Amino acid sequence: MYQAMTTLGFASESKFDKDNYQLSGEAPKGSTVLILGAGLAGMTAAYELRKAGYNVKLLEYNQKAGGRCWTLRGGDSYTELGGAKQECKFDEGLYINPGPWRIPYHHHAVLHYCKQFNVKLEVFSQINHNAYVHSSKAFGGKPKRYREVNADFQGHIAELLAKCVNQKGLDDAMSKDDTERLLLVMRQWGSLNGDDKYVKSVEASLMRGYDVMPGGGLMPAEQYGEPMGGIELLNSDLWQHLQTGNLFEYQSTIFQPIGGMDMIAKGFEKEVGSLIRYSSKVTKIHQDDKGVTVSYVDSEKPGDTMTESADWCVCTIPLSILGQIPANFSGKLSSAIRAVPYDTSVKVGLQFKRRFWEEDEHIYGGISYTDLPIEMISYPSTDFHSGGKGVLLGGYLWDANSYEFTAMSPEMRVKKALEYGAQIHPQYKEEFDNGIAVAWHKVPWTNGCYGLWTPESREAHYKNLCEIDNRIVLAGEHASYIPAWMEGAILSSLDAVNRLHAHAQAAKKAEA
Amino acid sequence: MYQAMTTLGFASESKFDKDNYQLSGEAPKGSTVLILGAGLAGMTAAYELRKAGYNVKLLEYNQKAGGRCWTLRGGDSYTELGGAKQECKFDEGLYINPGPWRIPYHHHAVLHYCKQFNVKLEVFSQINHNAYVHSSKAFGGKPKRYREVNADFQGHIAELLAKCVNQKGLDDAMSKDDTERLLLVMRQWGSLNGDDKYVKSVEASLMRGYDVMPGGGLMPAEQYGEPMGGIELLNSDLWQHLQTGNLFEYQSTIFQPIGGMDMIAKGFEKEVGSLIRYSSKVTKIHQDDKGVTVSYVDSEKPGDTMTESADWCVCTIPLSILGQIPANFSGKLSSAIRAVPYDTSVKVGLQFKRRFWEEDEHIYGGISYTDLPIEMISYPSTDFHSGGKGVLLGGYLWDANSYEFTAMSPEMRVKKALEYGAQIHPQYKEEFDNGIAVAWHKVPWTNGCYGLWTPESREAHYKNLCEIDNRIVLAGEHASYIPAWMEGAILSSLDAVNRLHAHAQAAKKAEA
Repeated sequence: MYQAMTTLGFASESKFDKDNYQLSGEAPKGSTVLILGAGLAGMTAAYELRKAGYNVKLLEYNQKAGGRCWTLRGGDSYTELGGAKQECKFDEGLYINPGPWRIPYHHHAVLHYCKQFNVKLEVFSQINHNAYVHSSKAFGGKPKRYREVNADFQGHIAELLAKCVNQKGLDDAMSKDDTERLLLVMRQWGSLNGDDKYVKSVEASLMRGYDVMPGGGLMPAEQYGEPMGGIELLNSDLWQHLQTGNLFEYQSTIFQPIGGMDMIAKGFEKEVGSLIRYSSKVTKIHQDDKGVTVSYVDSEKPGDTMTESADWCVCTIPLSILGQIPANFSGKLSSAIRAVPYDTSVKVGLQFKRRFWEEDEHIYGGISYTDLPIEMISYPSTDFHSGGKGVLLGGYLWDANSYEFTAMSPEMRVKKALEYGAQIHPQYKEEFDNGIAVAWHKVPWTNGCYGLWTPESREAHYKNLCEIDNRIVLAGEHASYIPAWMEGAILSSLDAVNRLHAHAQAAKKAEA
Repeated sequence: MYQAMTTLGFASESKFDKDNYQLSGEAPKGSTVLILGAGLAGMTAAYELRKAGYNVKLLEYNQKAGGRCWTLRGGDSYTELGGAKQECKFDEGLYINPGPWRIPYHHHAVLHYCKQFNVKLEVFSQINHNAYVHSSKAFGGKPKRYREVNADFQGHIAELLAKCVNQKGLDDAMSKDDTERLLLVMRQWGSLNGDDKYVKSVEASLMRGYDVMPGGGLMPAEQYGEPMGGIELLNSDLWQHLQTGNLFEYQSTIFQPIGGMDMIAKGFEKEVGSLIRYSSKVTKIHQDDKGVTVSYVDSEKPGDTMTESADWCVCTIPLSILGQIPANFSGKLSSAIRAVPYDTSVKVGLQFKRRFWEEDEHIYGGISYTDLPIEMISYPSTDFHSGGKGVLLGGYLWDANSYEFTAMSPEMRVKKALEYGAQIHPQYKEEFDNGIAVAWHKVPWTNGCYGLWTPESREAHYKNLCEIDNRIVLAGEHASYIPAWMEGAILSSLDAVNRLHAHAQAAKKAEA
């Protein structure tokens, strides 16, 4: 089972072959599977198991499917743990994705199902050379354009390396031809001048832009800008943000579904929605050698306990929740479930009365980075020049910043995001319309953002977490090496159902 | 006039203010302007002059407006100089832009008119980390993924600079604190290991990707790839292509109009189309102190010579054509017109039966670069996973490559582009459907691609080219410091009509 999946598309760069996603052979006749959670892992399991002939049911806590694959639009309301309720007041067509918001080109499984379910994709602008990088501790707190930092970083690095070459510092490591070649490369790559210096020049402007841009006719002549000092830049930490777009996970092309991330959830739901019992809060999981029985109550109006039984169970409930549910898992699995804390994260969506970032600052999509607690501001990748209102991701917070914001009321999170953001975009004060803020540790159906593994916990518990435990197998991003990403959830689920299927077939054979 | 334009939006990064695009004050009563050429420069002039109250007419060689702002779609036909006629057989919705195909975020004038005329824009994928960089002379002619070259280049540069620091090679140039800081930066930026080496490692894989990617459940463990050798990479020239996306002109966000570049031409044409006389080939330009008289014939069915007269003339005819038209320009202007040769370029559009670059190779948009004569292959930035046919820009040739292809028949250009492209995408042979090729030196209405200035010719002739010559002013990309770009054409035109307007007002005053 593995072999087909790992040699074709999922786990390598080789040719994607959709035929290898399918479970091989049919389900043992009359076999039933109960799936807990109708997020992407649960719905992937449902879709593939049903195709193989299993009788499938899903229990889902929420009134809709998708789990963390979630989009907030005008008219939606959301109540977090603690009872604070927010109404989303965004204009028609505007949204934020509180959970996943980007799809890397190498997340083949996600892309496969997008294609399968006709979920339309568009380019997500990760890098924008005209967006800002900002440090409150450098350059007087003035935001710099990404392109200036990028150009100046390359220029200064090239100048330093050229200096080493010119001082014969690499003569023991490289041949004369190669050092000469390196010098030529640095001159071009770093826009160095004739003296191998990175300075205000036409060459530098070809990367960093202009103070006065070239024009037409008899407009005034172009003027070059003054590069930042190399040492100041080195010590500013601004250069760190240059690396984001080079990381495998954020490289271009990176996508978003047109209209919101939950278009993927809706795509799955169209296929397996009829199998889902919504508003079902699991209260107990019991398995024996014959099968699994799950107790649940209505999550909206908790009343009588109901039960659902099946031969097998795929459990995709986040470990942060699952650890709280009475269940007779093996000791190994129970230990594994307890070993994985959940990371924290906060996202703030802000609607403004006009798209000032486009109109005033020529920023179309992409992300500005800052050392302020909001960490970043992301601009919409579509509907440029639409003239109407616009929604920014006004903060995406982690670690201590996230904890601090989680402790606030939703209104205060929005207020704080506005205060910090105004240090980068002073227009915030005039143009703010409304906002919404999701703190993942207060999301009732996850109690956190994603499973936070360490090398030690992986070593001790990962295998135990993933292995079939009598009648139950776990799936979800927490049961993958791609934590937090939808790809991890789907791959985990495909691997789990392939193993469960083989196991069920073997069990049937043994029985006969 | 200038001041408003240069301080607001056009020629600087300051706030764009559309009010400053308008001509100040009204046209002298009853003034007429004849505009030659209904490309973007000509239509900008028509739009703005008419708004100021001038009586405007345009003469256009083609049967439609736009000039080089041109899109070829299924059903279009095109006859080049020499008589070779091509029918475009692309499927519905597919196209190539033989001329401009990208709009940088800092081309404020183009963006202004796109907004004004409701031309919808989308992100053009310039950089794709999963596209190829290819040299027939390096790495056995095997294409490399952009991300691998990018990661390995950074890694090797960082290793070399770290080596210099560790050998105290920069101690005279920097303080101890700063060299220590530089070392930390190189370690992170270059994904160096604990020995400050760039080698096969988890760190390197975070940038360059994996041989076997991380998976879900109990899928086999991830495997890291082996980086390229630093010296081999340095000598391969592949690294040069990394720089493209850093250049001001190609930085993200870079756009394309949804549906084809000529949506911009159509936007203008909707406004000023009623002023255009199409199929008009200018045969003579005569001016005196009273006005301008232009002779022309029907370009489709040359017959009787017709004339059109006006007080003033804005001439946007490419210099390559204008130099062949009898005209009583001043000696200075005539010299300037003769001083600017036109660059050559060839573009080849190839339709394939399926989007194999997406299906087989996970390349979604962006550009692969090669040292083969085709120079690049550009993949569509939209309609991912559409399942139908797809059109690639199968070659964009310059210099000697372009001359060679220009000399071929269109069919041979397509055939050659296929042969070269198959070295990068072997699927070409199976999947090819049809193609079209435009050699700009054979385009009847331009005889070339764009005005090729040198520092010397700028010095000697640029001012003379742009200055009002009695009753005539020239405009177009050739009369700008942004040659080849639509922005140059529009800014040139705005500058020209502002000067002409002031001149006309002053002339009227002097008369009175």
